[in-house]
Amino acid sequence: MMTSLVGQHVDALDTPALLIDRKVLLGNIEVIGASLRKLGTAWRPHAKAHKSPSIAHLLLEAGAHGITCAKTSEAEIYAASGIRDILIANQVVGPIKTRRLAQLARQADIAVAVDCLENALEHDAAAAEAGTSPRLVIEINSGMNRAGIDPGDDTVELAKRIVALKHVRFGGVMTWEGHTTTVVDPAAREQAIHDSLAPVLESVLAIQDAGIDVPIVSCGGTGTFRTTAGIEGVTEVQAGGGIFGDQIYRALGVPVQPALSLLVTVTSRPAPDRVIIDAGRKSLDPTAALPEVQGLSNVQSMSFSAEHGIINLSAPTADVRIGDRLQLLIGYSDQAVHLHEQFFVLDGNTVSSVWPTWARGRLQ
Amino acid sequence: MMTSLVGQHVDALDTPALLIDRKVLLGNIEVIGASLRKLGTAWRPHAKAHKSPSIAHLLLEAGAHGITCAKTSEAEIYAASGIRDILIANQVVGPIKTRRLAQLARQADIAVAVDCLENALEHDAAAAEAGTSPRLVIEINSGMNRAGIDPGDDTVELAKRIVALKHVRFGGVMTWEGHTTTVVDPAAREQAIHDSLAPVLESVLAIQDAGIDVPIVSCGGTGTFRTTAGIEGVTEVQAGGGIFGDQIYRALGVPVQPALSLLVTVTSRPAPDRVIIDAGRKSLDPTAALPEVQGLSNVQSMSFSAEHGIINLSAPTADVRIGDRLQLLIGYSDQAVHLHEQFFVLDGNTVSSVWPTWARGRLQ
Repeated sequence: MMTSLVGQHVDALDTPALLIDRKVLLGNIEVIGASLRKLGTAWRPHAKAHKSPSIAHLLLEAGAHGITCAKTSEAEIYAASGIRDILIANQVVGPIKTRRLAQLARQADIAVAVDCLENALEHDAAAAEAGTSPRLVIEINSGMNRAGIDPGDDTVELAKRIVALKHVRFGGVMTWEGHTTTVVDPAAREQAIHDSLAPVLESVLAIQDAGIDVPIVSCGGTGTFRTTAGIEGVTEVQAGGGIFGDQIYRALGVPVQPALSLLVTVTSRPAPDRVIIDAGRKSLDPTAALPEVQGLSNVQSMSFSAEHGIINLSAPTADVRIGDRLQLLIGYSDQAVHLHEQFFVLDGNTVSSVWPTWARGRLQ
Repeated sequence: MMTSLVGQHVDALDTPALLIDRKVLLGNIEVIGASLRKLGTAWRPHAKAHKSPSIAHLLLEAGAHGITCAKTSEAEIYAASGIRDILIANQVVGPIKTRRLAQLARQADIAVAVDCLENALEHDAAAAEAGTSPRLVIEINSGMNRAGIDPGDDTVELAKRIVALKHVRFGGVMTWEGHTTTVVDPAAREQAIHDSLAPVLESVLAIQDAGIDVPIVSCGGTGTFRTTAGIEGVTEVQAGGGIFGDQIYRALGVPVQPALSLLVTVTSRPAPDRVIIDAGRKSLDPTAALPEVQGLSNVQSMSFSAEHGIINLSAPTADVRIGDRLQLLIGYSDQAVHLHEQFFVLDGNTVSSVWPTWARGRLQ
């Protein structure tokens, strides 16, 4: 964990190193938290971007009531770190995984997404064996066409079947209206979110009409929460990735600032208009969004091979020298954090904490 | 490391799990090794794809005389695993890194790429401080236009300056003619390799003419070694990634077979023509080459989000069921292995070894 670096100047860090500006991070958390408090909607931030119990606990302190994650092995990390209300927003399938989840329900109040009866029966059998009672949350397809059952009769029928099971609890429903984030015009995007969630919320009413309580109606990511959290019937949103202020969220108008950067070293200046850095695709995956090089205004293009980053400049310059350090603002933190073992948290230029990304590599 | 799974059936593995077919891997190693023995060229396989001392030692047993890696922290892993002749085929720049490398030269015979005098002087100073004598190998730009000094007078001058330094040894030269692998026609590719390496080999002769010994002339990856290893003056090739039989190398005609696959579970069948699996971009980066789903002939397209894989079929089918396991042959292993903590090695359907990927995450 390299905690021996705490208290030292940022220059003491070897590169590439993933940096968090603590003040900016806390500001972003406050922006999201305050807007949810105002709307009266609960907050279960997704932990997929930060992978870090340290940050999960910061979010709980800021008002979140639980967390969202993607895998049973991630839930194990957060449970071991003292977090109790955990939604696995993904199907957990097969005897190895369902047993593991049912055992974990001894330590934490686990909820898991299901989208078919077969999987619900598996969870019920595993819970019977473990003597636990995890919550099953129906994942509904709200138009993203990934996983999820269709809204309407199919959803209501599945809810009834889950309620009839002996060893699991019906936790409610969830969806991810992620496809709406590709709508560029803000008003049209807002409408798309409403249109996408309407059938989900109708399904919730139909389940309630059948006499079934629906404790959780969970949806909304950073790209949609400002609309989603205001919709009647939504109980909680999962906005979490936005705390790092990624470019992809800023482009959607979310009022957050860049908090995450990669500190790199210039390792070669083979031409006056070419800069080679010590970070490639194994330190930062630029597929979803390129990083932005802080303080370098003449970047023409960037490319990344496995271990090299190549910055092409629009004009020759002698200003960037071998050994110089550059800070790359991360464009999409989901695809950078899981490549690193820790964050170095900066207060000004001083390393004030080292936060392990214990949930990285937890793929199962 | 989950070595408790050794001896068990593959069905005992949770998913996603990275599998190696041992017989196929050994066959691929033998194909590359035999062709180099025939050409009389030494072998310093790059470890960037496998990240694993277990595999590095297999390669040494198969005739390799040393290894190539990309970072000082990777070299530390291999040195600690008993490997002595290690080339870091990348610039190691700045006081933190050069000191670390100079200290490592106590444990192993390190060679490191340099492409400018400034960096060579840094290494000399760090070596003086550590009392060691690492080898400096000049990286020459053979047309890939990444790092590397230009061939010709600049290279000869740098060699002379390195030889004059007191605390480092001149190790020779290296290049990576990687740009030639984009030439589709095999005969044209072969010509491109010759054209690309000619100025490098002329520079070597010019260095020798200046009375300087050039022990290492290192180049050639899996995509080029069949040509490169046969060129007079090349002392060793770095072909390493090909041992997994990736699609991108098979497409270049390298006679290797797929040895690496990702075992996944079907977690959702939301539509008859859509299959959701428990592996996304955090288990397998499909940017360079998509995987191939073994035994599934009607795959129309595949896409991957962070934690989900989506397989779209060309026709509806009930054959693939929730809970089924699929094997995805990896298209480009460089972008999958570093996401996993270990390989599960199979002999038939039995897990015969668990090999840790200790060099993963070693970014510095």
